[in-house]
Amino acid sequence: MKMAHLITNCSFSTSPAVKTFSGSPSYHLNVGQLQNSKSSNLCFKSCSKRQKKSYVTCASAAVQGKTQTPLTGSQQASDQPSSKPKKVMVIGGDGYCGWATALHLSNKGYEVAIVDNLVRRLFDHQLGLDSLTPITSIQDRIRRWKSLTGKTIQLFIGDICDFEFLSEAFKSFEPDAAVHFGEQRSAPYSMIDRSRAVYTQHNNVIGTLNVLFAIKEYSEECHLVKLGTMGEYGTPNIDIEEGFITITHNGRTDTLPYPKQASSFYHLSKVHDSHNIAFTCKAWGIRATDLNQGVVYGLRTDETAMHEELSNRFDYDGVFGTALNRFCVQAAVGHPLTVYGKGGQTRGYLDIRDTVQCVELAIANPAKPGEFRVFNQFTEQFSVNELAKLVTAAGAKLGLDVQTKSVPNPRVEAEEHYYNAKHTKLIELGLVPHLLSDSLLDSLLNFAVQYKDRVDTAQIMPSVSWKKMGAKPRTVSV
Amino acid sequence: MKMAHLITNCSFSTSPAVKTFSGSPSYHLNVGQLQNSKSSNLCFKSCSKRQKKSYVTCASAAVQGKTQTPLTGSQQASDQPSSKPKKVMVIGGDGYCGWATALHLSNKGYEVAIVDNLVRRLFDHQLGLDSLTPITSIQDRIRRWKSLTGKTIQLFIGDICDFEFLSEAFKSFEPDAAVHFGEQRSAPYSMIDRSRAVYTQHNNVIGTLNVLFAIKEYSEECHLVKLGTMGEYGTPNIDIEEGFITITHNGRTDTLPYPKQASSFYHLSKVHDSHNIAFTCKAWGIRATDLNQGVVYGLRTDETAMHEELSNRFDYDGVFGTALNRFCVQAAVGHPLTVYGKGGQTRGYLDIRDTVQCVELAIANPAKPGEFRVFNQFTEQFSVNELAKLVTAAGAKLGLDVQTKSVPNPRVEAEEHYYNAKHTKLIELGLVPHLLSDSLLDSLLNFAVQYKDRVDTAQIMPSVSWKKMGAKPRTVSV
Repeated sequence: MKMAHLITNCSFSTSPAVKTFSGSPSYHLNVGQLQNSKSSNLCFKSCSKRQKKSYVTCASAAVQGKTQTPLTGSQQASDQPSSKPKKVMVIGGDGYCGWATALHLSNKGYEVAIVDNLVRRLFDHQLGLDSLTPITSIQDRIRRWKSLTGKTIQLFIGDICDFEFLSEAFKSFEPDAAVHFGEQRSAPYSMIDRSRAVYTQHNNVIGTLNVLFAIKEYSEECHLVKLGTMGEYGTPNIDIEEGFITITHNGRTDTLPYPKQASSFYHLSKVHDSHNIAFTCKAWGIRATDLNQGVVYGLRTDETAMHEELSNRFDYDGVFGTALNRFCVQAAVGHPLTVYGKGGQTRGYLDIRDTVQCVELAIANPAKPGEFRVFNQFTEQFSVNELAKLVTAAGAKLGLDVQTKSVPNPRVEAEEHYYNAKHTKLIELGLVPHLLSDSLLDSLLNFAVQYKDRVDTAQIMPSVSWKKMGAKPRTVSV
Repeated sequence: MKMAHLITNCSFSTSPAVKTFSGSPSYHLNVGQLQNSKSSNLCFKSCSKRQKKSYVTCASAAVQGKTQTPLTGSQQASDQPSSKPKKVMVIGGDGYCGWATALHLSNKGYEVAIVDNLVRRLFDHQLGLDSLTPITSIQDRIRRWKSLTGKTIQLFIGDICDFEFLSEAFKSFEPDAAVHFGEQRSAPYSMIDRSRAVYTQHNNVIGTLNVLFAIKEYSEECHLVKLGTMGEYGTPNIDIEEGFITITHNGRTDTLPYPKQASSFYHLSKVHDSHNIAFTCKAWGIRATDLNQGVVYGLRTDETAMHEELSNRFDYDGVFGTALNRFCVQAAVGHPLTVYGKGGQTRGYLDIRDTVQCVELAIANPAKPGEFRVFNQFTEQFSVNELAKLVTAAGAKLGLDVQTKSVPNPRVEAEEHYYNAKHTKLIELGLVPHLLSDSLLDSLLNFAVQYKDRVDTAQIMPSVSWKKMGAKPRTVSV
């Protein structure tokens, strides 16, 4: 699909070791190829096959005393009969959640490959946005990870909408699980203009279809762990269940997919994915877990905190920044917290340390063949007003005078509503939540203050309107 | 999107009157331009504006004593305060349902424009299929209609996935209603291979998104009448309602979208459309009617029966042929009726004469701004076994010895299940159904016998398997 504002296949020519797939300008490299010194101890795919390292050995050797993770999926994983490390493909592994997850899984002893077209970085260039934390290139990130932990992360750079590229990645890596973060993930981005709405739905729906076909064709046993969103459910006036609801109607009963009421072209794309995945589980026997994730906050995980070159991105802008992170930055720079409308909008939230934990739990306890499983992945519910109050209180402790301002709601959504969403399945698998604590809020605010000179205040305000969205391409003012 | 097997923008060079939109190889013509003789009485767009013919006048002048239509939407339409004929854009107006609808609406006095890229004809070429009835070109069809009735149907040839083309069509025609049949409409086609699955979802979802954006941008009051499918609901163990269901759960109650369980990439594409449309109604105030149509049977409407050049297509093959039509052809040629599996699969069915009537009713009674309305568009339920019995009995009257054979079900679906779907809303609007009668069955069978020399028996058997569907392009054996 031609998109005037977007190039989805990125090609590189920095290294003579680049492996280009025929007919595709995509790019694959093993991190070992990037090392310019003694590579005898590098774990290439072929050598890892020979060595048959046990999962537990890898996991225990990984941490170097720097990580403290809850007892979760790694325990389950070590109960598996197989002694071979599970191979996990992290699609979208250069993004906010994907990067943290890739490192976490690598640290836990999984053999990890990142598949990414790096388009998230292009969005920043095109919209004039930037992560508050400086982030290094994916190549430098992986090199640094290798040098710190001795662990190899394979890298496949290309577009999953290009099936030829994706096929080669599957055939080469042979994943046991594919964690799919590789989607355009911003609701406001999908509401900028028609072109970006179409891009979002095409990219997300077709990309996921291709992943499903790749699993069917090349890795039938591969467990798909797909990132959905709590936004698929909307804000119904009844309790939100985890994926399915038992309905009694006119004297008969059935358990059916929970009704979906998404409120942006992005959220809708995830609804479409869920329906497509459920069908392929039934028709082809695909095993899949749909993680309907809430709003993620936080910056550091044990792994990204190891070195500044492993830093995760931190978005605070009106397009990619999520509420709590954005509020912390606003408080740090003396900008009023921008509450959209009445602020009664209530959603599920979670710490990024729980994102990585949940994904690991899902992988360690895979769905059965043919099973379409839905977990609601969040730990607490907050309204926007509640978040604003928490940030205001945390700011006061730092001597910041935090103001809150209601701005016209750019979205079309209920601003006061019932909200009670179940989220017990991941707890049952062993999730030990990092609830939003004063100390986490303090550290987020401190971080924002530390980086406040990098804040572009023009990025803070909402810049996209659901109602005013037009069919014509919108240019970005500088 | 590049599709090796598909060219979606067709360009023509047969007429010096072709109007090509800048940057697009698409094609628009007013049927008047095709007339090579006295055109003083042709109703071009500009002249229709001047004349301000009343709707009733047009409607009464139209029929030439040849049509007998039930008293339906035309009555409601004549009660409208506006005296100007409503302008209806029929997207996909060259297809089976679209062509019948375009003629019916034209006959009823609506000002009609057909938008079509004619790709349905390309599918036949590529798969080696053919309609049992010879069908003429869209240009000849429209010329014939003009010569018989004096009525003009405008023609815009192009791909609605090309927004520039669609925009020009909307700006030029200024529709009051857009009837959207313009989708890849075969479940088996969508299950041939990955390429066609992706094509189906891309074409249908993006095409519909573009229609929604065109309405928002150019015809905000335009009523979208979108063809959905009863297949969106699947076969739940509870009654199927019309689009929405009221659920009481844990002591609270809400009316929510009816849960969707589609069972092919085609049916899923319609689910995606429904979610997208519902969102735009809420976010932008679009007025939309989603017609969840059952399986259509029959060949003739009052209008297509007027002249052989107006004949509708009649598909009997394993890809595009629907059950009853296919059974009639099988009976005519002495081929056993191919029942998939146990044959207990029950669905809603309707006569194509009711398709055109239902669409007219929806147009004549439009949704309110912001309303997303769902009608279940069928008149009777049959199991596949019941249809087979009906055709067997009708065949006996013609001296045909009709056999029935169970073949392995190419689909993944329940073969025995509860099925009770509501379908009262169109009846309440005035639908007078043409129930499946012996005489209709007799005439369908007679028609099939008349054309049996044209039947390619190799096309009759199911050729697509849901489970065996592959990621790689499937070639068609000759």
